[in-house]
Amino acid sequence: MGVKGIRTALKVDFDKHASQQAGLHNRWHPDVPAYGKIANNEVVKIECLDWTGGQIKNNDSADDIKNVDLTQIHYLSGPFDIETAEPGDVLLVEIQDVQPFEDRPWGFTGIFSPQNGGGFLDELYPEPAKAIWDFEGIFCSSRHIPHVRFAGLIHPGIMGCAPSAEVLAEWNRREGELIAANTTNRDVAKPPEPQNVHAGFAAEAIKAKVGQEGARTIPGRPEHGGNCDIKNLSRGSKVYLPVHVPGAKFSVGDLHFSQGDGEISFCGAIEMAGIITLKFTVIKDGMSKMAMKSPIFHPGPVEPQFGPGRYLTFEGFSVDENGKQHYLDATVAYRQTCLRVIEYLRRYGYNDYQIYLLLSSAPVQGHIAGLVDIPNACTTLGVPMDIFDFDIRPEAEVVRRDMGSCAFAGK
Amino acid sequence: MGVKGIRTALKVDFDKHASQQAGLHNRWHPDVPAYGKIANNEVVKIECLDWTGGQIKNNDSADDIKNVDLTQIHYLSGPFDIETAEPGDVLLVEIQDVQPFEDRPWGFTGIFSPQNGGGFLDELYPEPAKAIWDFEGIFCSSRHIPHVRFAGLIHPGIMGCAPSAEVLAEWNRREGELIAANTTNRDVAKPPEPQNVHAGFAAEAIKAKVGQEGARTIPGRPEHGGNCDIKNLSRGSKVYLPVHVPGAKFSVGDLHFSQGDGEISFCGAIEMAGIITLKFTVIKDGMSKMAMKSPIFHPGPVEPQFGPGRYLTFEGFSVDENGKQHYLDATVAYRQTCLRVIEYLRRYGYNDYQIYLLLSSAPVQGHIAGLVDIPNACTTLGVPMDIFDFDIRPEAEVVRRDMGSCAFAGK
Amino acid sequence: MGVKGIRTALKVDFDKHASQQAGLHNRWHPDVPAYGKIANNEVVKIECLDWTGGQIKNNDSADDIKNVDLTQIHYLSGPFDIETAEPGDVLLVEIQDVQPFEDRPWGFTGIFSPQNGGGFLDELYPEPAKAIWDFEGIFCSSRHIPHVRFAGLIHPGIMGCAPSAEVLAEWNRREGELIAANTTNRDVAKPPEPQNVHAGFAAEAIKAKVGQEGARTIPGRPEHGGNCDIKNLSRGSKVYLPVHVPGAKFSVGDLHFSQGDGEISFCGAIEMAGIITLKFTVIKDGMSKMAMKSPIFHPGPVEPQFGPGRYLTFEGFSVDENGKQHYLDATVAYRQTCLRVIEYLRRYGYNDYQIYLLLSSAPVQGHIAGLVDIPNACTTLGVPMDIFDFDIRPEAEVVRRDMGSCAFAGK
Amino acid sequence: MGVKGIRTALKVDFDKHASQQAGLHNRWHPDVPAYGKIANNEVVKIECLDWTGGQIKNNDSADDIKNVDLTQIHYLSGPFDIETAEPGDVLLVEIQDVQPFEDRPWGFTGIFSPQNGGGFLDELYPEPAKAIWDFEGIFCSSRHIPHVRFAGLIHPGIMGCAPSAEVLAEWNRREGELIAANTTNRDVAKPPEPQNVHAGFAAEAIKAKVGQEGARTIPGRPEHGGNCDIKNLSRGSKVYLPVHVPGAKFSVGDLHFSQGDGEISFCGAIEMAGIITLKFTVIKDGMSKMAMKSPIFHPGPVEPQFGPGRYLTFEGFSVDENGKQHYLDATVAYRQTCLRVIEYLRRYGYNDYQIYLLLSSAPVQGHIAGLVDIPNACTTLGVPMDIFDFDIRPEAEVVRRDMGSCAFAGK
Repeated sequence: MGVKGIRTALKVDFDKHASQQAGLHNRWHPDVPAYGKIANNEVVKIECLDWTGGQIKNNDSADDIKNVDLTQIHYLSGPFDIETAEPGDVLLVEIQDVQPFEDRPWGFTGIFSPQNGGGFLDELYPEPAKAIWDFEGIFCSSRHIPHVRFAGLIHPGIMGCAPSAEVLAEWNRREGELIAANTTNRDVAKPPEPQNVHAGFAAEAIKAKVGQEGARTIPGRPEHGGNCDIKNLSRGSKVYLPVHVPGAKFSVGDLHFSQGDGEISFCGAIEMAGIITLKFTVIKDGMSKMAMKSPIFHPGPVEPQFGPGRYLTFEGFSVDENGKQHYLDATVAYRQTCLRVIEYLRRYGYNDYQIYLLLSSAPVQGHIAGLVDIPNACTTLGVPMDIFDFDIRPEAEVVRRDMGSCAFAGK
Repeated sequence: MGVKGIRTALKVDFDKHASQQAGLHNRWHPDVPAYGKIANNEVVKIECLDWTGGQIKNNDSADDIKNVDLTQIHYLSGPFDIETAEPGDVLLVEIQDVQPFEDRPWGFTGIFSPQNGGGFLDELYPEPAKAIWDFEGIFCSSRHIPHVRFAGLIHPGIMGCAPSAEVLAEWNRREGELIAANTTNRDVAKPPEPQNVHAGFAAEAIKAKVGQEGARTIPGRPEHGGNCDIKNLSRGSKVYLPVHVPGAKFSVGDLHFSQGDGEISFCGAIEMAGIITLKFTVIKDGMSKMAMKSPIFHPGPVEPQFGPGRYLTFEGFSVDENGKQHYLDATVAYRQTCLRVIEYLRRYGYNDYQIYLLLSSAPVQGHIAGLVDIPNACTTLGVPMDIFDFDIRPEAEVVRRDMGSCAFAGK
Repeated sequence: MGVKGIRTALKVDFDKHASQQAGLHNRWHPDVPAYGKIANNEVVKIECLDWTGGQIKNNDSADDIKNVDLTQIHYLSGPFDIETAEPGDVLLVEIQDVQPFEDRPWGFTGIFSPQNGGGFLDELYPEPAKAIWDFEGIFCSSRHIPHVRFAGLIHPGIMGCAPSAEVLAEWNRREGELIAANTTNRDVAKPPEPQNVHAGFAAEAIKAKVGQEGARTIPGRPEHGGNCDIKNLSRGSKVYLPVHVPGAKFSVGDLHFSQGDGEISFCGAIEMAGIITLKFTVIKDGMSKMAMKSPIFHPGPVEPQFGPGRYLTFEGFSVDENGKQHYLDATVAYRQTCLRVIEYLRRYGYNDYQIYLLLSSAPVQGHIAGLVDIPNACTTLGVPMDIFDFDIRPEAEVVRRDMGSCAFAGK
Repeated sequence: MGVKGIRTALKVDFDKHASQQAGLHNRWHPDVPAYGKIANNEVVKIECLDWTGGQIKNNDSADDIKNVDLTQIHYLSGPFDIETAEPGDVLLVEIQDVQPFEDRPWGFTGIFSPQNGGGFLDELYPEPAKAIWDFEGIFCSSRHIPHVRFAGLIHPGIMGCAPSAEVLAEWNRREGELIAANTTNRDVAKPPEPQNVHAGFAAEAIKAKVGQEGARTIPGRPEHGGNCDIKNLSRGSKVYLPVHVPGAKFSVGDLHFSQGDGEISFCGAIEMAGIITLKFTVIKDGMSKMAMKSPIFHPGPVEPQFGPGRYLTFEGFSVDENGKQHYLDATVAYRQTCLRVIEYLRRYGYNDYQIYLLLSSAPVQGHIAGLVDIPNACTTLGVPMDIFDFDIRPEAEVVRRDMGSCAFAGK
């Protein structure tokens, strides 16, 4: 009777640029070649770079955030062929563990400039900013947001199987239509981007094709999941993913030490490089058996638990900050909810960008409360009070502290 | 040392039409006269009719749902003058208890027709339908949705203080603009409605004014809360409400035995008549001290707890059922998420309307997962598996049962 | 389609002495006549006096505690014949609700003198003492233990079916042997007690027999449950009880608004009169099917939840306060654990009796940690920090407050 | 701005016998020399062997359990001098992480023979037995107890500071008295044991003294904690330990992947080698400030959470299996509670030893329910139903499975 260690299906190399590593890629396309094979029912470890491929540094300037090259992102690990997986199957992925690298116990949260990435509140908070988080076992804290400390609800931001050519064409069609119809001055979606495309070890012709057709990894998409940024997909969760191509061509990346519901600052989670341990099981003909159009998941029993009575919860409605009434718009309502938290917490001495970063990264609970009472959507945002080392209950005295600052970019 | 029972500040009369009861009203307006006075720090019981004032019956036809008169709703209890409350204060309301009437241990969930009320999924599910729920202590079950039973997370759908004249004018302005700009064939908001206005014991002139100017109680609104339909505002919660008029003129109603996040079918919660026990505390100058623009709340420690590992969670994205791509639209995403649950659960024998009713009323968790990854918003909906008496995990065998039907309207 | 209210199977009368009420009794004996019948699968409400039958008053003296007549206790409601129940069956009792009487929103916790009842720490704390608790919806607080407030985990202390003659004889045998072997100066068990026996409406001969043979209701017993004082048997729980006599002869009483694990002061829970709603289901031949020798239960999903990180937890070992080493004695260890909490909390200004009362009544978690590491048993006691309105974490400053006092007896 | 990895204060060597490693020791004595120094406020990693020092193998025979040499145990890592710590201080130890070694993803649970170690139920279950557990990320499962899988609540069984000479003398006095008074045929405590003593790199004379006087590590003790076997001392917990000697001389070991309350089979937890990450903070004069006689702790917010409604809970009373009545004896009651679970679970096909092993290692909740109702103590044991892959609720059908067997010793 032996003991078998777990195979590492992909190692990353911190001394080599992400674009030079054959096990990484940064577009969704059926032709990105499989980096390796994983057996049905096998457990493997997969190493991942942070989503930017190492562009962001552990320092006190947000210049790197300001100048981040978004054509490169996200560097995903994979794709992997899962033996026996065929289109129409469901790939059950059990997240057995996620860890930062032992010698890289830190991560970052960023606020991007509207000119380069933007974020949920970028009209109000256009400055690039950054917070570095230090990991202390299961906890994290930041010199850029003092008096806060919490346990990570660690998870991958991105998991998914490759689209088929048909699925990819559909993505390009519908997102193209949105782009074509855009009359605003902001990007509403990202079309295929040949620049800085990385297609693993694909030959040049394939790589060019991936650049021209490949879907950006930024949005999650209903047909395969992708960049869902679901904070509860943590250790112990099972995820059921539709399979669209032979072998599934599964990829994973964008690991987060923690994230709040909504990941509001876009680079909002605590982004990190790390190692994920996954078990793969193929459910034959699962899409039809489970009537599945989008991924579903079953969280594990282990989460930071604050108790229902330990949240301070804010309400927001679909009336924007200019007094304009929107029709049942949960997005507008959630933005207002975030602003209500910022107004409340700034009384303790934090600047608004610190709170914006905090809301993006701490395990805040963003709920859709009411979505039918015309014209107002109502959303709530629950802030766990135990992440602060002072008392934020409304009945406690407000003491204004020197909270320092998050990192900003030089002018 | 004596024991003082709790004063009942308002009794409702089930033998008299709601419109004839002086302690009820159905519009928000500063001139609705205060029905009674409540001392600062006092605890009182307040009785409430169901939101329709008794229009819906405990039977097996949805004709009452089809023909419901929405000009009457919601019948609220109050308003009450809270002693010492002044504009700019915050009214702290502690929900000490909510109960159905002992001799009315039942409630209802309804799906309205698009011609009369509508709901979140009304384009797909236009038939009026109804489920009656029987209360068994802390649990409820329905002959119209068999094999389901859960503990209520009992709460008031509506609480709020009266708007000032200025606040009311602002509501009418912005909602009027939305109505004026409406080019769709559906109502986007409800303007003041003189028909069936009820302003408590107001004299005729005041009543007419309330009818002409008074805000409908349907939407929650940022300045005072109102119809927030927040399922976690349950027993033990503290709510902090802005005060806009002298005495606050607090009203409450629309009691729910249970509700899912979003209250998706509009009459989606388990609506009931009942008794709420509230404690009122005035926080002088609270709006400025707490930097408050919208209500905040602090839930109590008692909730049905299923454990993180007991939810089956569905994902949805802002691509609608016609394949159209929407831009970061959480409302579209949540609608898709609901549809994913319907597709999954119908395999067990439920019809779609039963599931639509269930999603509205059971304590499902609707989260905003990601709201920044252009162009897709991602929302999730967690269904507590323990509310079913059979196993809905993906790995369990699907057995199709005779699930009967919810109530429909006669043709 | 009608709505049926729930039948009240027993009403108590506060104007009549408990001993004069036919639906009450205070001994376990198969011959106590059944007060009423309950159908299989029926839901009924049953009213209960507090366990002393009203001897303890809502005042500020513990004279009533000092002079309590323990020959009368506990007054139980019942017994009830459950239709179809036969020996060998299991009676499934679902606790659908427990409530105090609306016009009696208070309860009491008492410390008995060693001469009359005693308690877990009576050698150290021999004075009779009392705390009165006021109920505020789901919460309670006490003028005798200020700065504390918590939600009740409301439950019946006693539930059980009558013993058969054989089971009763076994009880009397084994407890009689313990009494006979007693060489200490304290009561180790209570033999049958003819004085003040109450056997419902039994004729005199039966009543005399019950007095001579009937088991006291003080201890829980493995064969039927009885006075288990399990704080988690709250609303929504299902209890599976062995049936020993035809009709089961089910009784219930000793309602608690809240209790800590161990109920350490004997009259330790928050004792109250109230109404319990129960559903009864007979499981034929259940004892053999379930291999059942003692009751088992399945708690409901609704409990006050403080989160694992909100408990301050104390350790105790089986070395007593005189330095004597005991062998794996969890009882000694738990007594030491309680003393550790008293030493910690008295720094805030409470007197020891206040803390003793608090530990008995608040939802503290008493765990058996290690019970195999000879010679020391280790137990833990977790105190939920959120029941205090000040910060009791070790890192918070200790501020000594004027905490008043619990009630004591006059000298 | 740099990133500092965490220092490993002690590495163990799997190729060298534990007794030859200078950083380990197996007795409590103030003269065991400090292996290293740790700064106040420093975070370090400390490697630990399993408690037997590697005597138990990953195979299918319990011969190693039968023949285990208990004079060697426990091999602890340390002691460490914590800078600035003085007698009377409190050492705050934050458990930031605990992990198995990556290449040793397994652990064991053992049942010892009464002739060599024994256990809580050894009179009924005298055979040596063993289960090997495989770790899969946060989960574990065992080929020896099929159909069970659960998330680890990983923790150290032993932590403590060295006793002073006075404290050690007191231990030897009181445990010696117990041994001297023993009239049973079983060990009631373990006196100092010169054989196989290991005192780190101590010189021979010191080592001999440690052998003659040093306290065995088997029991936890009130003055310093030690072998508490508290399952909730998991990641994120803070433990407050009394300091008795200059530098504290802190030791740690006996890591558990999981354990049930009581650790009933003595070698009951899932024993493993691993790495613990600790932060040390000295609280000057803390014992007097905190009125501390025994350690206290503050658990972290992260635990496997099953929800209150997911436990099946068994009751036990202080009447032993021979019908003998004991006086308020929680130890007897807990033994009966364990037997009730065994009787219930064996219906599914498990043999009694498998269940005995399972109860020791799974996160079962052992509560002291009532401890004052003479003569019966009542304890409860809650079994989380979600650890089984079949339905163990009483209402589910009982299907007897082939459950294989745990490992036994050859005859």
